[in-house]
Amino acid sequence: MAKKTATKKTAKKKTAKRVYFFGNGKAEANAKMKELLGGKGANLAEMSRLGVPVPPGFTISTQTCHDFNKLGQKWPRGLKVEVEKNVAKLERAMKAKFGDPKKPLLVSVRSGAAVSMPGMMDTVLNLGLNDDVVAGIIKKTGNPRFAYDIYRRFIDMFGDVVMGCHHEKFEHAIDAAKKKAKVANDNELSADQLKAVVDDYKKIYKKEIGKMFPQNPIDQLTLAVNAVFGSWDIPRAVKYRKLNDITGLLGTAVNVQAMVFGNMGDDCSTGVCFTRNPSTGKKEFYGEYLINAQGEDVVAGIRTPLDLKHLKKDMPKAYKELTALMTRLEKHYKDMQDMEFTVQEGVLYILQTRNGKRTAEAAVQIAVDMVKEKVIKQSDAVMRVTPKQLDRLLHPHFDAKATRNVITTGLPASPGAAVGQVVFDADTAEQWRDKGKKTILVRIETSPEDIGGMDAAVGILTQRGGMTSHAAVVARGMGKCCVAGCGDMTINYKAKKFTVGGKTVKAGDWISLDGSLGQVILGQVPTVEPKLAGSFGQFLKMCDKFRTLGVRTNADTPGDSKRARDFGAEGIGLTRTEHMFFEGERIWPVREMILAADDYAALLTGLADTRDKKEAAALKKQYGGAKKQFEGALKKLLPYQRKDFVGIFKAMAGLPVTVRLLDPPLHEFLPQEEKNQKEMAKRLKISPKVVKEQVEALHEFNPMLGHRGCRLAITYPAIYRMQVRAIMEAALQVKKSGKKVLPEIMIPLVGSIEELAIIKADVIDEIEQVFKAKKAKMPYMIGTMIEVPRAALTADEVATEAEFFSFGTNDLTQMTMGFSRDDAGKFLGEYVKQGIYAVDPFQALDQSGVGKLVEVGIQLGRTTRPKLKIGICGEHGGEPSSIEFCHKAGMNYVSCSPFRVPIARLAAAQAAIKNK
Amino acid sequence: MAKKTATKKTAKKKTAKRVYFFGNGKAEANAKMKELLGGKGANLAEMSRLGVPVPPGFTISTQTCHDFNKLGQKWPRGLKVEVEKNVAKLERAMKAKFGDPKKPLLVSVRSGAAVSMPGMMDTVLNLGLNDDVVAGIIKKTGNPRFAYDIYRRFIDMFGDVVMGCHHEKFEHAIDAAKKKAKVANDNELSADQLKAVVDDYKKIYKKEIGKMFPQNPIDQLTLAVNAVFGSWDIPRAVKYRKLNDITGLLGTAVNVQAMVFGNMGDDCSTGVCFTRNPSTGKKEFYGEYLINAQGEDVVAGIRTPLDLKHLKKDMPKAYKELTALMTRLEKHYKDMQDMEFTVQEGVLYILQTRNGKRTAEAAVQIAVDMVKEKVIKQSDAVMRVTPKQLDRLLHPHFDAKATRNVITTGLPASPGAAVGQVVFDADTAEQWRDKGKKTILVRIETSPEDIGGMDAAVGILTQRGGMTSHAAVVARGMGKCCVAGCGDMTINYKAKKFTVGGKTVKAGDWISLDGSLGQVILGQVPTVEPKLAGSFGQFLKMCDKFRTLGVRTNADTPGDSKRARDFGAEGIGLTRTEHMFFEGERIWPVREMILAADDYAALLTGLADTRDKKEAAALKKQYGGAKKQFEGALKKLLPYQRKDFVGIFKAMAGLPVTVRLLDPPLHEFLPQEEKNQKEMAKRLKISPKVVKEQVEALHEFNPMLGHRGCRLAITYPAIYRMQVRAIMEAALQVKKSGKKVLPEIMIPLVGSIEELAIIKADVIDEIEQVFKAKKAKMPYMIGTMIEVPRAALTADEVATEAEFFSFGTNDLTQMTMGFSRDDAGKFLGEYVKQGIYAVDPFQALDQSGVGKLVEVGIQLGRTTRPKLKIGICGEHGGEPSSIEFCHKAGMNYVSCSPFRVPIARLAAAQAAIKNK
Repeated sequence: MAKKTATKKTAKKKTAKRVYFFGNGKAEANAKMKELLGGKGANLAEMSRLGVPVPPGFTISTQTCHDFNKLGQKWPRGLKVEVEKNVAKLERAMKAKFGDPKKPLLVSVRSGAAVSMPGMMDTVLNLGLNDDVVAGIIKKTGNPRFAYDIYRRFIDMFGDVVMGCHHEKFEHAIDAAKKKAKVANDNELSADQLKAVVDDYKKIYKKEIGKMFPQNPIDQLTLAVNAVFGSWDIPRAVKYRKLNDITGLLGTAVNVQAMVFGNMGDDCSTGVCFTRNPSTGKKEFYGEYLINAQGEDVVAGIRTPLDLKHLKKDMPKAYKELTALMTRLEKHYKDMQDMEFTVQEGVLYILQTRNGKRTAEAAVQIAVDMVKEKVIKQSDAVMRVTPKQLDRLLHPHFDAKATRNVITTGLPASPGAAVGQVVFDADTAEQWRDKGKKTILVRIETSPEDIGGMDAAVGILTQRGGMTSHAAVVARGMGKCCVAGCGDMTINYKAKKFTVGGKTVKAGDWISLDGSLGQVILGQVPTVEPKLAGSFGQFLKMCDKFRTLGVRTNADTPGDSKRARDFGAEGIGLTRTEHMFFEGERIWPVREMILAADDYAALLTGLADTRDKKEAAALKKQYGGAKKQFEGALKKLLPYQRKDFVGIFKAMAGLPVTVRLLDPPLHEFLPQEEKNQKEMAKRLKISPKVVKEQVEALHEFNPMLGHRGCRLAITYPAIYRMQVRAIMEAALQVKKSGKKVLPEIMIPLVGSIEELAIIKADVIDEIEQVFKAKKAKMPYMIGTMIEVPRAALTADEVATEAEFFSFGTNDLTQMTMGFSRDDAGKFLGEYVKQGIYAVDPFQALDQSGVGKLVEVGIQLGRTTRPKLKIGICGEHGGEPSSIEFCHKAGMNYVSCSPFRVPIARLAAAQAAIKNK
Repeated sequence: MAKKTATKKTAKKKTAKRVYFFGNGKAEANAKMKELLGGKGANLAEMSRLGVPVPPGFTISTQTCHDFNKLGQKWPRGLKVEVEKNVAKLERAMKAKFGDPKKPLLVSVRSGAAVSMPGMMDTVLNLGLNDDVVAGIIKKTGNPRFAYDIYRRFIDMFGDVVMGCHHEKFEHAIDAAKKKAKVANDNELSADQLKAVVDDYKKIYKKEIGKMFPQNPIDQLTLAVNAVFGSWDIPRAVKYRKLNDITGLLGTAVNVQAMVFGNMGDDCSTGVCFTRNPSTGKKEFYGEYLINAQGEDVVAGIRTPLDLKHLKKDMPKAYKELTALMTRLEKHYKDMQDMEFTVQEGVLYILQTRNGKRTAEAAVQIAVDMVKEKVIKQSDAVMRVTPKQLDRLLHPHFDAKATRNVITTGLPASPGAAVGQVVFDADTAEQWRDKGKKTILVRIETSPEDIGGMDAAVGILTQRGGMTSHAAVVARGMGKCCVAGCGDMTINYKAKKFTVGGKTVKAGDWISLDGSLGQVILGQVPTVEPKLAGSFGQFLKMCDKFRTLGVRTNADTPGDSKRARDFGAEGIGLTRTEHMFFEGERIWPVREMILAADDYAALLTGLADTRDKKEAAALKKQYGGAKKQFEGALKKLLPYQRKDFVGIFKAMAGLPVTVRLLDPPLHEFLPQEEKNQKEMAKRLKISPKVVKEQVEALHEFNPMLGHRGCRLAITYPAIYRMQVRAIMEAALQVKKSGKKVLPEIMIPLVGSIEELAIIKADVIDEIEQVFKAKKAKMPYMIGTMIEVPRAALTADEVATEAEFFSFGTNDLTQMTMGFSRDDAGKFLGEYVKQGIYAVDPFQALDQSGVGKLVEVGIQLGRTTRPKLKIGICGEHGGEPSSIEFCHKAGMNYVSCSPFRVPIARLAAAQAAIKNK
């Protein structure tokens, strides 16, 4: 019995339906069968059901495409019979026959996957034409011009798309014919001239393909279906899917549909229309058409199409029908529709309708308007705009019509568009800026010493480094365009030039950077400034109603803080204090401090080891100078830091501000180049040898895993004490001025509870001293970054001391995956290409690996403190898929660079809606 | 009701017994109360119960010490009353009284914690003496010499130990007296002379302490108890506990015991004895004694004591009683006893008995013998020898009696003792070795280029690097003494000298290294070669009966493999193939390969990206040279590698051999110094610029997290293919010769299942090619290292491809804790000192952090493959506490360097017994 059932099932599977018919107000499928029939196929079926005047036809399923490609480009068993049956049905519906000179059936063959991939797949029109049919059409219509025109178009398209004979070859022939006839446009050629073109085309076909042009329509159809199925795996299709993160599809469907003609005379036309303006989002009918033309003429841009509104005059009946259908279909699909139509001898046909592509601006406008019009719910509106679109709204972008001479492509490190003259060092960038020049700073990699130049330049281009390299992080913080990790570039600082792909670019040459695509373009591409319309704010407010995740910002200056607050940030999730150590004059006390660091540490260690007073006194005498120098340098830094914090606290009044104490290794503050070392020696009045020795002594093999973060505070407690003093003095000062301050002190790179406990005790001691001296108190929190895997694994312990967690997923990714973000550029590209990782883990959080540790950390942390406040402050905090992960993992907030705050608000809202 | 119970409990706690009496064949405590009364206290109680002639007394508990120190060095409530009651009881037992001139009670006051800490805590003897009592003793005994002698000893000891007045001060006074009396020894001084010494001592006491010497015995006792309790926290005690990993103790107990005297005349004596020879383990009575002396005279070594066998003649009765007791107590305690005894006027007293300290040799001998004698079970015997002792047996060590001029202390990176002349580079080490000289190679750090020199030197000393630095790992592999990470040393390669603590050592100077203690010693310290007696082998065979963990070795050469097999290794857990890339001539093809690597990768990437045949042909043309060079170089390496594997497979015939494919980043194979770069350019007939450029191109910021391990195989599949071919060709060749070969191919640094799947497919393909060509087949396994945290977190996925796991806990520790082993030396010392990590996590596995990941990895891995073979091949595989962890975590085997194999066998056996 059981066996019988199995046999039945197998049998059923073998005979699974592959072809679905539609037409005449009926259909074997519906809108829900997108996965099996593609968007277009499901839509045609649905429209047919809705009574929309769609030319009849049939759809071959995506499963068939999958089977076809799996079988090594062969038709699966049974397909042939099913196609033939449907052709017969179509012949009946159209009262026409394949190859019948009197009543010939002509069809279009189009691809259509479950997700729209415009231009990626191939289309063939007018299939069914052959010598006999053309002769029949001439006989029947008395319009040989029309007949030869569609025939020559068909041979061209079939040869190009189906058989791989390049379109240019045909183009040359018709150009020659036009030259010979002394006319400018195709439609000026006479019937005879077109007939000659047809003959030329057939010869070209024979020459290129090695076979005669096929005369049997069924052969034509078979080859065309094969071409559509085969095109699923051509490189540009694979690339498009990869670029757009399209995965999990079976293949494309094939839509075979009866042809209707917009080029049978002046009572014919063809066009595309949108139910709203896809550029601005304005509620108006929008579109264009051509009289006496086929669809591809509109798209190809050979003839200039007319604005849709003229159709009202040209073909009033068709126009009335069309606009009524547009209104009806938008209402039905609850989204702006992009439709293709043809008027054949005064009769309107709708060839296609789908949700229309739109600009970022239009997406926001339409979403907001449709809510106002009560067409969709707010939650639907929130889902209608992608975070990527929002991102584009926030940065200038290149004029879409401009041509681009792309010389190389790197990582899209910070979005936007930048045009400037190439400079190779930070100083020049600053000098040129002062002269009013726009520059692009080109570096092998950037370091904190380049900050001034990065600020001065309009864009940054680096040879090395990934999405979270110094250049990328700083640029995103500045909202500045950056392309990073262009590995195939060779930079020659000395000769002030770089070469790539055989091209050389010198200092002063103009280049343009597309930070959203990672493109490096020769010359000046015209840019378009972003317009933040009123609907932008309305849309984001709508988002805020849904999201449960808080959105904070990573900001190190009052300016950044203010900008982020304007973008809707609800506090600061990460203030990096090390940037404050580099600025202007401050670097000098920092360096004084570092020069005394070893002796100072020796003093502390010595004092901790002895109980002997005499020994202690001797130590103090020996290292007294170092102590004075170290602590003296910190005293000089204190007022700077305090001022920084006052500015930030004021900008963020009423909102929480998380300040991360010093994180980088000390050697980052010393000059690496000999020239700069000499300058430092001169300035500090010491021997260059001393500087060099200290640089060498502090050298680390793997600085990422070295003496940094809170490890510095274990060795030199005075540094964090100074910082904490600056924070609390600033907080009390701002509080005194009547503003609310919520300081959160964050200890970085914690790996064990004991480490945090020791430092926390120091921090509290210092705060109590400040309170005592200032005779004032205020609430504050002390928490930690979770960025070392061990901290996540022992988060239950860590939470006994930490009052909040902030996941530093940059470092956590580096350590969990064993990738140095500065070095991974060399192989990570290959990894993503080979599908080892679906995306660069520094762009989107690696949920199945790093994400597990995050989940473990949250779960363990909340075991100890059920209400533990948890956020993320790595770069992933501004990336939509990672934000959804944070939402699901139960975090309280994400924190990202100011320009990503709106994106985070949207992504958080979408995460909440998706996971309700 | 509940409240009442609580009150009762509190009350009970408050009045908990603090003082326990023993004597006259009775005791309030027993041997099991070690934690509360210390080893000595529990033992005295037990002996008393056993009827051993112990002088009576009482013990104040360790809890009291804890409370005392917690209360800021004050006696807890009720202690005074309890002590007074016990003093009264003791007075009754001894029929004597504190301060009674006629029948004075004299007591000893000694410390005694739960774990024996010899010399760490302080002892006071003859407490109770004062002017009146001394007068009384003189009156009663007519022996003023004796009376003044014990009085002056008491003042000295009390002043020194209890009051902190240095012993030297008293020593000066008695030296002066001896000079004055023209005698050499203390016991030659007359009664009057001693009386004068007593007066001098009192004056010294008054001058140093500022108070008169206390005359009231209860005051003396109170001060002495305070001193013992206080001594728990003095630096040398704290340091001893730290050095010996002694944690979790409450404090020390105080033992107050009636004094008996070995110095009351020639019918008195005092001595120590062992029930077996503590040096050799031989079953013989062993000990020494002094006639007419107190115990500290024996220990202090001022008079030369006599061998115990003389006591038979000197005091036949006491000797007979003593030896009977020795036999009885050893039988009772089932271990070799270390006893202190005193004969007072012909009567034997046992002052103390405890399990005796013994040398490593003795420990093994005694364990083996006691099993033969059926005194203990085999499992007990296994627990009697510590892994540290076994380690000492395997390496030469310094003569314990030699003085050491220690100039600095680094990390005990590889045990043993080495004496040699300092050299600063590998070449010199080799040249001097060839001249028959013994050298110590001193380097800032070592690199693979130093291997030859490391092999030539007898010991290695480095300034940088931790327990798993290159120097440490290689040295342990070679069984060579190494001290690493001497951070306070400054090496000047140019001047060929190093300085430390103001001392300068030049090339050619003799130094000695103690690799077990990390000491660097000036001059030549005499060494003692290890004796691996027959009992050593018997003992390890006993261990093997208990352990369930397999023990393999990390070996890269046939020589190492053989040595490890002799030590009992059951296979190879890790063969590092990169060492084979460095040796001799092989480095040249390796470098040729690296020079062609970029273009070769460009070719592979290009070919993968295109389907266009013409484009592919163009690529092949462009990069054909690189392909030829890269693949040609690999072809040159193949026979070398094959030969290596043949040797190893032969040495390990019948046992599994795990071969790890290439792991380090390619830049490690290129010379970093300009001189060597020039040499390479010359040799390969290319421009030095090309070499320099490639070195720079391959530079990594964090090489530990860079392009290495299996990431190399993703970019350059040909490297692993060559290695796999070499392995399988070698395996088939050895198999053909009739030997069994069990190759296990291990892919390093895997982070994701996809990565492993791609490489595994390549490996299998190559193996199939070898099988086809050789017309032979054989079984093999393909597995992976788990060393990237992500691999552990996704081990369920990884196990779908991996046929075995081997935890690489060196890298796993680095990534999980965020420490670079090469850089952590700078701060890890401070971390261990401050108790943030109890031990260096590169020495012993961090069980609460890294261990969690190991457990997760094992659990997930076995979810997919329940019988998955799992081992460890990090340095922790030879460390006892880590081995116990591996046992508990359910691993199948540990793998360690050859010299640690016996230790691993022991540690694995102990782990099995402990966790039965």
